[in-house]
Amino acid sequence: MLDRKPLGRDGAFEALAALLGNRLSLSQSDRDLHGRDEGHFPLMAPDAVVYPENSGEVAEIVRICAGAGLPVIGWGAGTSLEGHAIAPRGGVCVDFQRMDKVLQVLPEDMVAVVQPGLTREGLNTELRATGLFFPVDPGANASLGGMASTRASGTTAVRYGTMRANVLGLEVVLADGRIIHTGTRAPKSSTGYDLTALFVGAEGTLGLITELTLKLHGQPEAVSAAVCAFDDMEGAVNAVIATIQSGIPMARIEFVDRAAAAAFNAQSDANWPDAPHLMVEFHGSEAAVAEQAGRFGEIAADFGGQDFRWARKPEERLALWAMRHNAYRAMMAANPGRSPITTDICVPISRLAEAVEETAAEIAASGIPGPIVGHVGDGNFHALLLPVEGDAAQWEQAMKLAANMAERALRLGGTVSGEHGIGMGKLKYMDAEHGQAWQVMGAIKAALDPENLMNPGKLLPGSN
Amino acid sequence: MLDRKPLGRDGAFEALAALLGNRLSLSQSDRDLHGRDEGHFPLMAPDAVVYPENSGEVAEIVRICAGAGLPVIGWGAGTSLEGHAIAPRGGVCVDFQRMDKVLQVLPEDMVAVVQPGLTREGLNTELRATGLFFPVDPGANASLGGMASTRASGTTAVRYGTMRANVLGLEVVLADGRIIHTGTRAPKSSTGYDLTALFVGAEGTLGLITELTLKLHGQPEAVSAAVCAFDDMEGAVNAVIATIQSGIPMARIEFVDRAAAAAFNAQSDANWPDAPHLMVEFHGSEAAVAEQAGRFGEIAADFGGQDFRWARKPEERLALWAMRHNAYRAMMAANPGRSPITTDICVPISRLAEAVEETAAEIAASGIPGPIVGHVGDGNFHALLLPVEGDAAQWEQAMKLAANMAERALRLGGTVSGEHGIGMGKLKYMDAEHGQAWQVMGAIKAALDPENLMNPGKLLPGSN
Repeated sequence: MLDRKPLGRDGAFEALAALLGNRLSLSQSDRDLHGRDEGHFPLMAPDAVVYPENSGEVAEIVRICAGAGLPVIGWGAGTSLEGHAIAPRGGVCVDFQRMDKVLQVLPEDMVAVVQPGLTREGLNTELRATGLFFPVDPGANASLGGMASTRASGTTAVRYGTMRANVLGLEVVLADGRIIHTGTRAPKSSTGYDLTALFVGAEGTLGLITELTLKLHGQPEAVSAAVCAFDDMEGAVNAVIATIQSGIPMARIEFVDRAAAAAFNAQSDANWPDAPHLMVEFHGSEAAVAEQAGRFGEIAADFGGQDFRWARKPEERLALWAMRHNAYRAMMAANPGRSPITTDICVPISRLAEAVEETAAEIAASGIPGPIVGHVGDGNFHALLLPVEGDAAQWEQAMKLAANMAERALRLGGTVSGEHGIGMGKLKYMDAEHGQAWQVMGAIKAALDPENLMNPGKLLPGSN
Repeated sequence: MLDRKPLGRDGAFEALAALLGNRLSLSQSDRDLHGRDEGHFPLMAPDAVVYPENSGEVAEIVRICAGAGLPVIGWGAGTSLEGHAIAPRGGVCVDFQRMDKVLQVLPEDMVAVVQPGLTREGLNTELRATGLFFPVDPGANASLGGMASTRASGTTAVRYGTMRANVLGLEVVLADGRIIHTGTRAPKSSTGYDLTALFVGAEGTLGLITELTLKLHGQPEAVSAAVCAFDDMEGAVNAVIATIQSGIPMARIEFVDRAAAAAFNAQSDANWPDAPHLMVEFHGSEAAVAEQAGRFGEIAADFGGQDFRWARKPEERLALWAMRHNAYRAMMAANPGRSPITTDICVPISRLAEAVEETAAEIAASGIPGPIVGHVGDGNFHALLLPVEGDAAQWEQAMKLAANMAERALRLGGTVSGEHGIGMGKLKYMDAEHGQAWQVMGAIKAALDPENLMNPGKLLPGSN
């Protein structure tokens, strides 16, 4: 339990220094590095940055901060897009870069136990010899703790699920310094509240994740990927809807609009036609992959899909998906002198065409560049809105486009964030999406963190 | 918000009568019917039973009960095994039998919106013409509200997941009568705490589920099922482990020990050999099913699997799985004059052989009948312990066997309940499984139901 010494701010820093030595940093450069993520928020720096090496240190850090009333903010790879890990109320940023180990791989149970600072690519590198992989792949090489905290997904969620489905258990340091363990290594359990699911997506507002037990998947026997072009967006999106409804177990099915395809071409030797595209991948036995690819090819052709280019060699596939993962950078590079506003709506699959087409039409009418890419097999897509840097009027206009997308998602029975999370950026839509359920989130927060010290200013009612 | 009139108990019954007319029942027979489930607990009857017809009535019932300090307990089909829906502290039982409608089926989104009193078989009957089905299938024809509340699973969870994976959203009446909505119809979301997952498995202790948005699945193009016999339990269980680790996407893989097989034979014309069995099913395209069945056949043969009997016609498959779903009744019938104690442990797949064999050996040594069946693809199995009715010493001995199973599950990295839930029956293991995390469940409960009126005496710390 909390040993509530009235430390004061200076006393807290002294206690942290005693605990961590030079793994406490008060330098302006370090603080500034932890005051900005990849989203559009201005610098909001913490008062200090700490680099713990184990869960016990994290618990002690939290206890010290609680004693001084200092906010505690977790930091993984700093790749979030909605201001999740920046420090609007100051406090201590807990950077997990030294807690980046694979603690255990249990191939027979298809489970890995990892520390939160490990990145998804780091994990998959370590898994290479096992025949297993961890599928969840947001664009960035994010940390697994951060991915759990934002309930991240990516291109493979259509087949393997999001972090919700791929975290079996957690170790969490609570606001009072207690360490708890959620979940087990068994594939399922029916023993009380699903605390694992509660902390996945809680964005560090209920505690700090210090260890994750992750579900792994077998490398498929055969993999095949392809790109195909469509005459128009409508054809591409309707092909996705028909494919999903047909039950083909797609491993990936990604939409890339004409502007995004042009950005890909500019960054690589892809040399795609000037058209909207789908990028797809099939996993299974040789026979299953051939069958799935054949069925998808027929559906795509029905909707005007053409110019299929297959990536059969592993290095070709790697290049293809690296291009997709770098979409954000490619689209930024294709539009120099612009400030990015990311969007991230997700709708029921039956409303996807409507959602994408209305969005594209409104963006086109605005004159602001806004290339669209999306994990469309999940009904999830992103427009990267790119107003001229420093043009306040265009910024406002782009923010209005983003707000209209959020409103559109809700009107169509969807959600304002498919995978990026709320942070500070989407707070303004929480009441519209959740109503009284948002207040229930607030009540849970108040119960577990009554002093509001865990990542304050994010996600919850009263944060503005 | 709660309109806290100090109604008193009689005032509450008057208010309920005014609201519901003859849908409030105070009769002893009705109360007794709602004071016992299918588990081993003695009669614990509520003070009244109500039969609401819509969410608004449920909210009003909860408000009235809160005003009088009366417990509120949800009731679906009464098929739970751990005392979830009985009334150790009296109060008002909310029977959802009149809220049993399919409100909406959205085939294009593969989603159904249903009321909590609808049973799983009722839903699948209504879905028959759509080409879709709802896979989760506990042994009993349970209500979907009850299945969500206990995070139920069944024979198909190995492929399609448990209720955790198949509930997209909920309408819930909270302890203060507020109605909230969780989740959306989009396939995924990253907008705050996963309240859907929190209420799934909360056993009615945080609120009453009044509507469910469920994920449906396409009827597979081809289905094939089979039964095969093994020389010994070890061979059967090791075949399961090898099958799961090989990545064959089994739709079902069920273990039936020798004693359970004998009980099946006694109840049907199955005429199985006197041996342990696996029951399996494959879903997919014609080619995929053939391929999966072939690969499974090879693995099974490696472990001594023989005497394959295929159920290719739909009616043969229905008969096969009906037999499995009726296992509990068959095992009871085969052992007359016995009191049942159900068990439900779940372990990592790598520890399954150890868990089953230790359990079987200990049961055999006890002399108490204890046939074993299990959803072994998930690492989950049940021994039905059958001490002589009225023999207190044997009852104690059987309870000790059950406790040893729970301890074994935890020692092997698993959980004390794979699918039946906690209720009152497994309260005693919660601290051992969850430690401080159980206290976190208690803190959430206290935040959302400070008067402890929603299904008191179940699941949470302080319930004994």
